[in-house]
Amino acid sequence: MRISKTIIGFFLLAQLAFASLAQAQEDPLASWNEGPAKSAILEFVVEVTEPDSPGYLAPDERIAVFDNDGTLWSEKPLYFQVLFAVERVQEMAGDHPEWTDTQPFEAALEEDWKAVAASGGQGLMKLLAATQSGMTDSAFTAKVEDWLDTARHPRFDRPFTELIFQPMLEVLTYLRANGFRTWIVSGGGIDFMRAWTEETYDIPPEQVIGSQVDLDYLSDAEAPTFERKSGTFFFTDGANKPIGIQRHVGRRPVIAFGNSDGDLEMLEWTTTGEGPRLGMLIHHTDAEREWTYDRESDIGRLDKGLDAGPARGWIIVDMAADWAQVYPWQSLP
Amino acid sequence: MRISKTIIGFFLLAQLAFASLAQAQEDPLASWNEGPAKSAILEFVVEVTEPDSPGYLAPDERIAVFDNDGTLWSEKPLYFQVLFAVERVQEMAGDHPEWTDTQPFEAALEEDWKAVAASGGQGLMKLLAATQSGMTDSAFTAKVEDWLDTARHPRFDRPFTELIFQPMLEVLTYLRANGFRTWIVSGGGIDFMRAWTEETYDIPPEQVIGSQVDLDYLSDAEAPTFERKSGTFFFTDGANKPIGIQRHVGRRPVIAFGNSDGDLEMLEWTTTGEGPRLGMLIHHTDAEREWTYDRESDIGRLDKGLDAGPARGWIIVDMAADWAQVYPWQSLP
Repeated sequence: MRISKTIIGFFLLAQLAFASLAQAQEDPLASWNEGPAKSAILEFVVEVTEPDSPGYLAPDERIAVFDNDGTLWSEKPLYFQVLFAVERVQEMAGDHPEWTDTQPFEAALEEDWKAVAASGGQGLMKLLAATQSGMTDSAFTAKVEDWLDTARHPRFDRPFTELIFQPMLEVLTYLRANGFRTWIVSGGGIDFMRAWTEETYDIPPEQVIGSQVDLDYLSDAEAPTFERKSGTFFFTDGANKPIGIQRHVGRRPVIAFGNSDGDLEMLEWTTTGEGPRLGMLIHHTDAEREWTYDRESDIGRLDKGLDAGPARGWIIVDMAADWAQVYPWQSLP
Repeated sequence: MRISKTIIGFFLLAQLAFASLAQAQEDPLASWNEGPAKSAILEFVVEVTEPDSPGYLAPDERIAVFDNDGTLWSEKPLYFQVLFAVERVQEMAGDHPEWTDTQPFEAALEEDWKAVAASGGQGLMKLLAATQSGMTDSAFTAKVEDWLDTARHPRFDRPFTELIFQPMLEVLTYLRANGFRTWIVSGGGIDFMRAWTEETYDIPPEQVIGSQVDLDYLSDAEAPTFERKSGTFFFTDGANKPIGIQRHVGRRPVIAFGNSDGDLEMLEWTTTGEGPRLGMLIHHTDAEREWTYDRESDIGRLDKGLDAGPARGWIIVDMAADWAQVYPWQSLP
């Protein structure tokens, strides 16, 4: 009797062990269709985490970087931070009568997204500079939070933080479960993103790298604060992405995800290091569930990357074919 | 028999539990003499980590920042990075005949530490700019590593990384064991420090904030790299310390350790937040084991902090009285 109880106990334990193994083997990338993109991610993680693998990486070295606009969430009809700027332009217009006939403010007031986008980097910077500096950083964060609570996306009529990509949430979670630190490296504003990335992506402020205005520290023995200075800006795009990584992370990443030509230097810096490397570019090919755009788009242009990427071993993710689901609230097919 | 075996097993387990409890209760700050400084650290950690404490902080909020020169390691006769620059000046002097009668290069060539220190911030910057830019970042790191391997401190004849403070190593370890992230926020160069802080303090590159030259990213399909640009410099001292914290950490720290008037803004920003806060200033009072200096020193001047600190609730650590041991290799008294 005693022995049989021990045996039963052993079988119960074994059963538990199998159950947790099965759970661990549930598909961590359930929203990705079977194909080369999904396989590349799964195989890469096995390659760098199996202790006997020649490509094994110590946890310290497991750094993955992600562009945000167009990679972790959508960016149409305009980068969402620019839509936030447009709302601020509308709020502030009473004090700026000159805006009614000055571009890109005029286009912003008329909600002419095409004209705003066509104003280019220079135009978008003018909108951001006019509306997102000259205040304390806590006042700025409060404005971002208000906007997130109330604004709705013009096409989907949902809060902007719901326009995030379910397959990429799964990638973030899967990598972190395998010892990776996941960093955002985006042209978006560092303080704009930090207002919501922890809640939305589980990425803490210290792992967010983005464009920044200079700050002034206003010393005060009781309530010091920071002032967002106007007129200065570090734009984390192109070559400034690897520079931002070097400044904040201080190590070379081994995985990089992007979606536009502004991400090419980040993918280059990541994938030319020694050992296993993974570079991926999201190609927006799904007009029905999201948007279709690439070489001709003013926002998130992907042109050189489509030509040069495959030869450099970067994987082009075909959103329509590779993603079974785009947004978390869209049902699976 | 069966029952007594179970009881013995239980006692063995209980014994193990007590042993590990005893181990956990060994003094984590063994190199600190009993006194208000040691008590303040121990009490603060209990206050913010006990789940029932009104001052409880979620682990995300447990951020501690540390100046480096004079706080985690010594800084006499000159900041050690300046001694590294002096060695580079001596190496490079053949190509710079003008240095033999130009200050502070002349003083550096003559190893006249007093004259180098007296050249002030401007002079030290000249030495750094002339010797630590205009090369790739990997070439720079290799030079730092070479220097660490070969250079010896002029007074103690030991590698510079042995001039670290045993009591502060204990603080770092104790805080991390209690869920804190420990960040360096130093006027020292970010790339200079990252070459050795992980091995020496167990602080990874991404938790090192320091002065920086601008970088150029040199794109290359096979071997991209960074060039350290000359002529530009962000000096992480004074008000730039809280700015650096805001840029890299994006959260307000709850603990700050410094030792000079250049740390006052960092302590101010840290200790004026809500809830429990801890600000400490190391006062160099031990000429025998280390150095004695404060209000009149060109290096690490502590003047305003001595007057204003106590009224702001900051604790002045009296090195001679509060530290039973200074360097790890000095024996306990």
